[in-house]
Amino acid sequence: MTSRTYELDRAHVFHSWSAQASLDPLVITKAHGSAVWDDAGHRYLDFASQLVFTNIGHQHPDVVEAIREQAATLCTIAPQHANDARSEAARLIAGLAPEGLDHVFFTNGGAEAVEHAVRMARLHTGRIKVLSRYRSYHGGTATAVNVTGDPRRWPNDYGAAGTAKFFGPFLYRSEFDATTEDEECRRALRHLRRTVELEGPATVAAIILETVPGTAGVMPPPPGYLAGVREICDEHGIVMILDEVMAGFGRTGAWLALDHYGVRPDLITFAKGVTSGYVPLGGVVISRGIHQTFAHRPYPGGLTYSGHPLACATAVATIQVMRDERIVERSAQVGGEVLGPGLRALAERHPCVGEVRGLGTFWALELVSDRATKDPLAPYGGSSATMDAIAAACRREGLLPFVNANRIHVVPPCNVSDADVAEGLEILDHALRLGDAVSPD
Amino acid sequence: MTSRTYELDRAHVFHSWSAQASLDPLVITKAHGSAVWDDAGHRYLDFASQLVFTNIGHQHPDVVEAIREQAATLCTIAPQHANDARSEAARLIAGLAPEGLDHVFFTNGGAEAVEHAVRMARLHTGRIKVLSRYRSYHGGTATAVNVTGDPRRWPNDYGAAGTAKFFGPFLYRSEFDATTEDEECRRALRHLRRTVELEGPATVAAIILETVPGTAGVMPPPPGYLAGVREICDEHGIVMILDEVMAGFGRTGAWLALDHYGVRPDLITFAKGVTSGYVPLGGVVISRGIHQTFAHRPYPGGLTYSGHPLACATAVATIQVMRDERIVERSAQVGGEVLGPGLRALAERHPCVGEVRGLGTFWALELVSDRATKDPLAPYGGSSATMDAIAAACRREGLLPFVNANRIHVVPPCNVSDADVAEGLEILDHALRLGDAVSPD
Repeated sequence: MTSRTYELDRAHVFHSWSAQASLDPLVITKAHGSAVWDDAGHRYLDFASQLVFTNIGHQHPDVVEAIREQAATLCTIAPQHANDARSEAARLIAGLAPEGLDHVFFTNGGAEAVEHAVRMARLHTGRIKVLSRYRSYHGGTATAVNVTGDPRRWPNDYGAAGTAKFFGPFLYRSEFDATTEDEECRRALRHLRRTVELEGPATVAAIILETVPGTAGVMPPPPGYLAGVREICDEHGIVMILDEVMAGFGRTGAWLALDHYGVRPDLITFAKGVTSGYVPLGGVVISRGIHQTFAHRPYPGGLTYSGHPLACATAVATIQVMRDERIVERSAQVGGEVLGPGLRALAERHPCVGEVRGLGTFWALELVSDRATKDPLAPYGGSSATMDAIAAACRREGLLPFVNANRIHVVPPCNVSDADVAEGLEILDHALRLGDAVSPD
Repeated sequence: MTSRTYELDRAHVFHSWSAQASLDPLVITKAHGSAVWDDAGHRYLDFASQLVFTNIGHQHPDVVEAIREQAATLCTIAPQHANDARSEAARLIAGLAPEGLDHVFFTNGGAEAVEHAVRMARLHTGRIKVLSRYRSYHGGTATAVNVTGDPRRWPNDYGAAGTAKFFGPFLYRSEFDATTEDEECRRALRHLRRTVELEGPATVAAIILETVPGTAGVMPPPPGYLAGVREICDEHGIVMILDEVMAGFGRTGAWLALDHYGVRPDLITFAKGVTSGYVPLGGVVISRGIHQTFAHRPYPGGLTYSGHPLACATAVATIQVMRDERIVERSAQVGGEVLGPGLRALAERHPCVGEVRGLGTFWALELVSDRATKDPLAPYGGSSATMDAIAAACRREGLLPFVNANRIHVVPPCNVSDADVAEGLEILDHALRLGDAVSPD
């Protein structure tokens, strides 16, 4: 029996990134902490944090209360005015960024943040070209999807004017025939430097990259890589944009993922964790130099809901909760002591797990049919019966996984409990048997 | 003395469409109905509806309560699931669209709605080119700003691949040397037909236009124009997109502006009034034919917050309030009986008013130095000392006007009271003297 909500969904809701006829959505009626419930009362442990955004878990009472209070006080004000929630959110977010990045331009989400960061970089430099990584995701709008290096770009690629791609460091599937992290790092930097030189350094406005690439595979960069990118940018007057939409706000066990690498970009994009998605919000943190470019020259960009008070009040409350409950520290701890070791133990038991990588509450399992050849259990950008079966087995046992091609990302809320981690790992343990079955090991 | 909110704003908030050093924002601390208050306790009548989005006025108690309830129940769920608030919002919104447009793709705002509508049209037709009007605004992201026909496109125009512009009907400044609405309509349609023919009909994916162009000047199309556009689209298999972001949800005295013209587009974009901006929301209403294109072929677009439950619950409550309080009917009535006549009376007293046009709560005054030559009081896309002085005089007397180049748009909430209209018109009456001073009449 299907519910009215389900029927209306199929009759009237057009879903993201999908063939509409093939959908069979869960009807979610309740959520709390790291779990959600469907309309039949089944509980699911949310190891996807929805789309990697409920960093403080669902329905945190303090943030819910802050939304309720702001709603009663003042829901909305246009961007040209000033407002206490907006001012305070900007102060707090700028305070999390490295020294020298003081101003925040608010958007509704990550894609718009990338649109505007690229625009600022182009106008600041007077150049057009933007370099970005293969194996990356930066958003769904025109500019954001064209700097994206994953298959979702393909159907949206009408020449991708003003963009070029390079390969980043990814030792497990090295493009550089490297055998150590250090070698991968040096070769990836040489490759980037060569790419910039051959694209024409004076034509390159920006290099944009996720501090830790997320949907593309959770690939923490080797030590020194981001510092090397910074150096290349400095040599050629190129704006460095770090995309922290998925990696920021506790996900990696630091406030911003860039904190792990001691690097100072010129622009930082954020969204998702800043409000845990309770109210849509994104933005760009801006360096003094780029702010100065638009001190006397109008910035030609904007949006109706820039700095929306309800969204900004939600960000203020979310950051406060993360501080009060030490959620960033918890993310680091659970990653180092529980989740990381647990996933590595799974890898020992399951030959289909080719690699475990990650940090904090930001992990990926690379599933392969053969550890030696590293043949993926689904092709790049595609799916397979085996991966579908693993995902279905997880859901059947009450776990929502984040599945992308041949990978399972393990990305629970940053404040996930040890008990929930144990429960989720046990379900994964069962489901991964389906992957082992096709492995020749 | 400046407040902490003001100081933090200047220290940390980067504002839309502005030179940052020149800003002196009002600090808004309270809002109710058609008015807002600053931190010194001054009341301002909001004849801009912020940015033409608070269609039900500020802080409507029923909608505030709906936000508070949904926040306590379930703030957020990822787009791939189903949810009662999302299903119900989609049902209600599809129900407002013409027969044959059944599905809703939710975005965060209008720019993203346009991005996705254009993408759907391109993939549906297999063509790339999008035709749009000069004197139009469709949003700030890359595709949206490139189909925009106003000066905000210029600094973002890197060739605007896949777009071309045409002139729409605008009798007051006719491009077609027309002297009657009917003549303007016929010539504008001939011009559009010729543009399509010379661009190559088989290369044109879509024609996008605001049902009533908004920020570009509130120009209701002559009877027959939109039906003529529909005919041209049908002849050549072109997708017709009507942008209702500003004109929809009561603004023109109809639920959708297209209701005035009996035209059925293939895609409708909406935002703003759908929630009165209380929580950011936008979207695309999709015809069966285009939905069918993506039945078995994945739609390559999406966003983290598509169909956000808090935003959707806000839309449901907003539509309910508009029905219960007959706010759409009120918009038509106040336009026909109070606001329209009042503005025409101002025009009789003030030689600087070259034209009054509009409907519902959607009006523009075209200010000129000479009614015969129609010389504008500020250049296209620019400002002038006189226009700045008029705006400042309004604010000084407690009115927030919407000023664009040489125009004042009079766009109060759709449920503005007669008393508030009278108060606002009186302030405008004083301020317009400053325009008369430079007029040779």
